[in-house]
Amino acid sequence: MAKLLSLDAIQASAAALVDAVGSIYEKSPWIVERAFAAAPFASLTALAAAMVAVVDAATEEEQLALLRAHPDLAGKAALAGELTDESTEEQAQAGLGSLTPAEMERFTALNGAYRDKFGFPFILAVRGATKHVILGAFDARLANARGAELAACIAQVHKIAWMRLRLLVAHAPTGKLTCHVLDTARGCPAAAMAVTLRRQTSDAWEVVGRWMTNSDGRLPNGPALEGAALVDGVYEWTFGVGDYFAIAGVPTAGTPFLKEVPIRFGIDNPEKHYHVPLLASPWSFSTYRGS
Amino acid sequence: MAKLLSLDAIQASAAALVDAVGSIYEKSPWIVERAFAAAPFASLTALAAAMVAVVDAATEEEQLALLRAHPDLAGKAALAGELTDESTEEQAQAGLGSLTPAEMERFTALNGAYRDKFGFPFILAVRGATKHVILGAFDARLANARGAELAACIAQVHKIAWMRLRLLVAHAPTGKLTCHVLDTARGCPAAAMAVTLRRQTSDAWEVVGRWMTNSDGRLPNGPALEGAALVDGVYEWTFGVGDYFAIAGVPTAGTPFLKEVPIRFGIDNPEKHYHVPLLASPWSFSTYRGS
Amino acid sequence: MAKLLSLDAIQASAAALVDAVGSIYEKSPWIVERAFAAAPFASLTALAAAMVAVVDAATEEEQLALLRAHPDLAGKAALAGELTDESTEEQAQAGLGSLTPAEMERFTALNGAYRDKFGFPFILAVRGATKHVILGAFDARLANARGAELAACIAQVHKIAWMRLRLLVAHAPTGKLTCHVLDTARGCPAAAMAVTLRRQTSDAWEVVGRWMTNSDGRLPNGPALEGAALVDGVYEWTFGVGDYFAIAGVPTAGTPFLKEVPIRFGIDNPEKHYHVPLLASPWSFSTYRGS
Amino acid sequence: MAKLLSLDAIQASAAALVDAVGSIYEKSPWIVERAFAAAPFASLTALAAAMVAVVDAATEEEQLALLRAHPDLAGKAALAGELTDESTEEQAQAGLGSLTPAEMERFTALNGAYRDKFGFPFILAVRGATKHVILGAFDARLANARGAELAACIAQVHKIAWMRLRLLVAHAPTGKLTCHVLDTARGCPAAAMAVTLRRQTSDAWEVVGRWMTNSDGRLPNGPALEGAALVDGVYEWTFGVGDYFAIAGVPTAGTPFLKEVPIRFGIDNPEKHYHVPLLASPWSFSTYRGS
Repeated sequence: MAKLLSLDAIQASAAALVDAVGSIYEKSPWIVERAFAAAPFASLTALAAAMVAVVDAATEEEQLALLRAHPDLAGKAALAGELTDESTEEQAQAGLGSLTPAEMERFTALNGAYRDKFGFPFILAVRGATKHVILGAFDARLANARGAELAACIAQVHKIAWMRLRLLVAHAPTGKLTCHVLDTARGCPAAAMAVTLRRQTSDAWEVVGRWMTNSDGRLPNGPALEGAALVDGVYEWTFGVGDYFAIAGVPTAGTPFLKEVPIRFGIDNPEKHYHVPLLASPWSFSTYRGS
Repeated sequence: MAKLLSLDAIQASAAALVDAVGSIYEKSPWIVERAFAAAPFASLTALAAAMVAVVDAATEEEQLALLRAHPDLAGKAALAGELTDESTEEQAQAGLGSLTPAEMERFTALNGAYRDKFGFPFILAVRGATKHVILGAFDARLANARGAELAACIAQVHKIAWMRLRLLVAHAPTGKLTCHVLDTARGCPAAAMAVTLRRQTSDAWEVVGRWMTNSDGRLPNGPALEGAALVDGVYEWTFGVGDYFAIAGVPTAGTPFLKEVPIRFGIDNPEKHYHVPLLASPWSFSTYRGS
Repeated sequence: MAKLLSLDAIQASAAALVDAVGSIYEKSPWIVERAFAAAPFASLTALAAAMVAVVDAATEEEQLALLRAHPDLAGKAALAGELTDESTEEQAQAGLGSLTPAEMERFTALNGAYRDKFGFPFILAVRGATKHVILGAFDARLANARGAELAACIAQVHKIAWMRLRLLVAHAPTGKLTCHVLDTARGCPAAAMAVTLRRQTSDAWEVVGRWMTNSDGRLPNGPALEGAALVDGVYEWTFGVGDYFAIAGVPTAGTPFLKEVPIRFGIDNPEKHYHVPLLASPWSFSTYRGS
Repeated sequence: MAKLLSLDAIQASAAALVDAVGSIYEKSPWIVERAFAAAPFASLTALAAAMVAVVDAATEEEQLALLRAHPDLAGKAALAGELTDESTEEQAQAGLGSLTPAEMERFTALNGAYRDKFGFPFILAVRGATKHVILGAFDARLANARGAELAACIAQVHKIAWMRLRLLVAHAPTGKLTCHVLDTARGCPAAAMAVTLRRQTSDAWEVVGRWMTNSDGRLPNGPALEGAALVDGVYEWTFGVGDYFAIAGVPTAGTPFLKEVPIRFGIDNPEKHYHVPLLASPWSFSTYRGS
């Protein structure tokens, strides 16, 4: 991964900001330029919010121009090698660079039908998506009314910009990842339960840490990760639910229904607090993004 | 309540359908008229889906005309007594007929700001809503982008039409209400638990039925309600969770954390299956709309 | 309700403690007497724990004597008016003072069968229980093995003692009741949701307080109740889930599946922290005793 | 794995049954012998229930003799190689054959303390357990009252017998594994969601099947596994929650909070129905053993 820029360093002037991240909105540097009016930004989150506000405040024509600045997915521009660097990479990651002729034909038909109906191209944040998801979303959204699609495309534009921004600039060290385990069979915190955190790398699950919960059912030494150490990505807790209930004497089977309970989750904005708790009995569990 | 029309009786011709329910889309009988092309309709649900498809297929100008056919909430037309009967009743129900001068001023300002920003009036299904909700939604939606508001107003228009439709025409007897209770402390169906169903009337909660769950944790004789007997409205299950666990010998407190567990829920479309289960331990419970 | 004793006042000596609360273990003042060795007690919870430890450390003969000091439910002693005052009141509250001859016969048979099988009387904390629960528990427990019943009876004895203790002595002001609302449809705290707390009195639900959640989804001014103001009993939160999602613009039906969501729960030990949160989407919710 | 016996073949006579499975209760073939009175058995579940009933109906002396027939964990008999074959294997699997001197000393002390307090050995089903769990359970249970420990040891004895039984005799083909996915963000079945089932082998997770849910949120062709194909062991569903919501157009992050959701669970009794559903929004999920 290339070294990330410093948020402080890039906001010396509107020009500096545009120079650094002007391309995150496809061919629309004016968004970054206008957002500078709200500088200084203490975080990527604040910068992103300012850019969303710029788009919301833009005229209808400007919003349509923003949408129309986007290329078709697997469209003529892609074939001709005329995409921005960012779009080229994103479309390739999603497998759109190696479509079969039949798939290519389907994309061409969908792109045309969508443009005919709505007057702007179909926009979807494809980084990390598969052809299955892209085609499924395409079908579903073609059936929408125009207002819904305007809203959906604007939302996707912001999502793409956010993903591009994170690849360029280091996040503020304000986030943290925490955990809490409740025993819903006995109505108390789950103390002394083993918890492991892993992070997905390109080819493995790397152990980040191992803990035993304290008497309040939390990790003993504060957040599992925080500040610069908390990066976006895919994580997995593993909770030793079976051993916990076995020690507690709650009746469970020889092959317990729940033994090692994995909870896999993604962190999209490492400047935020991700509280990812577990509520568990020997026969049920749930999790959610808490606060 | 006035006697409801029969769905069969009103779909003899496009004219008959418009005559019966042409007013459910505000001053826009063309929607009902065009929807007739998909007749016959076996249910209100099918008729409503056809009307949604008509609006989705309409031109942008027609969609905007539909939105602009709606009056402002607590606006000049309301003051002048120029609303449709339906709008008059709905706005009165929400308390918009008796605003203080300060409230009236706030509505006037919001209506104006919204029209200035989006070019169409703020639309919200206000039946059953309070001033607090209406003003809260107004503030929230004023901050949206235009595409999102187009989509939101269209959705509200369909919601209003559905509520008006149900007041006019009897629903098809295809729906049912069912229940299922799982014991998450012991991982089994909760057998022999007392369940009561009540329905909210204008001034009380009327008992619909009382049951003991069978060995699979379900009501013993099929649905609690079905067909014509299932009407829209607000219902409440009460589950005897505390007694169930006391009999089962699962340790609970003298004043148990959970004893009588009420689950209150609304039925909006009585042609559908509402499966409203309970998952319970002595210390936790959850419910959801199942299937 | 009679004025409660002060915990400080009753622990001046073992004799004082026995005098005040010696009767909470049926005809077994030795438990309170021995527990005094662990005085001073900062709370009823601490006193109760000391008494549990005394029973655990007692000989098998003493434990059996403790169990055998209990009267049959609806048994000869009850008929003859020979129960302790506490047992008389508890059995009357559960409706055991007005059994039909057939019910009386059934109790007599069950009492006999239980004593024959286990060698000690069937013990159940009956305050607040119904005949249905008592007979259901009787049937279920008669099928148990002896070890399980020894354990069950000892647990019931402690439960009875705790309920009697709370009627005599004021609790330490260490408890609190808190709340937290998470929006599981959008993955964030549910801000600005209306919350009402009611407490069940002998004939009504009395409003304790009304709040709007803050930006973290919590009550704005700390606990809903704490210290001496938190008393045992049955409570009910009502959450304005429907209005919250209506304002947020999350699509919901005209008669929403969830509008006013009641969560009814009991507080057995007012010296503890009761955290009773709500996790809600427009179509599902759950709660649990948290920490 | 050795070939399993046929349940039909082993119940020709009490002697045959004892010969086949008489050793599953440690040195106590009388249990199997008496259980034969309830033959024929249609399933291992029925046979196990009959053996539980025999133990429940046994005298207190017989129950104590049953407990006392068990060896200490890591005790003198184990050191001297005097365990039954079954116990030898189970203790070895749990790592009790290779304790450090300090660990051995701790076990000796715990075994002695437990026998002194209760008059019978500490019994725990150790197959699949770790030293951590065994020692944790030992500490926790030493603090119990005698009745609770009688009950706990009897329960462990049955658990051990069940695990031994499954290693000897083939189960009846009456079980099945099913699934159901509900979308709690939109209150409907989750249709067209990818589901994969894997089974844990000694060194990998082997794919059992891949499906897309049907319109009711269920697997399209009945149970994932049933009859003889459903064997005990550890399984894992993986649900394509992220792709499902991306196609549905529900707003999610670029790195979604939930993308691939694993649900790991054990099947202890393959003669039963295991219904293991998923309730999911983009920000929360839960599962439980259903029916």
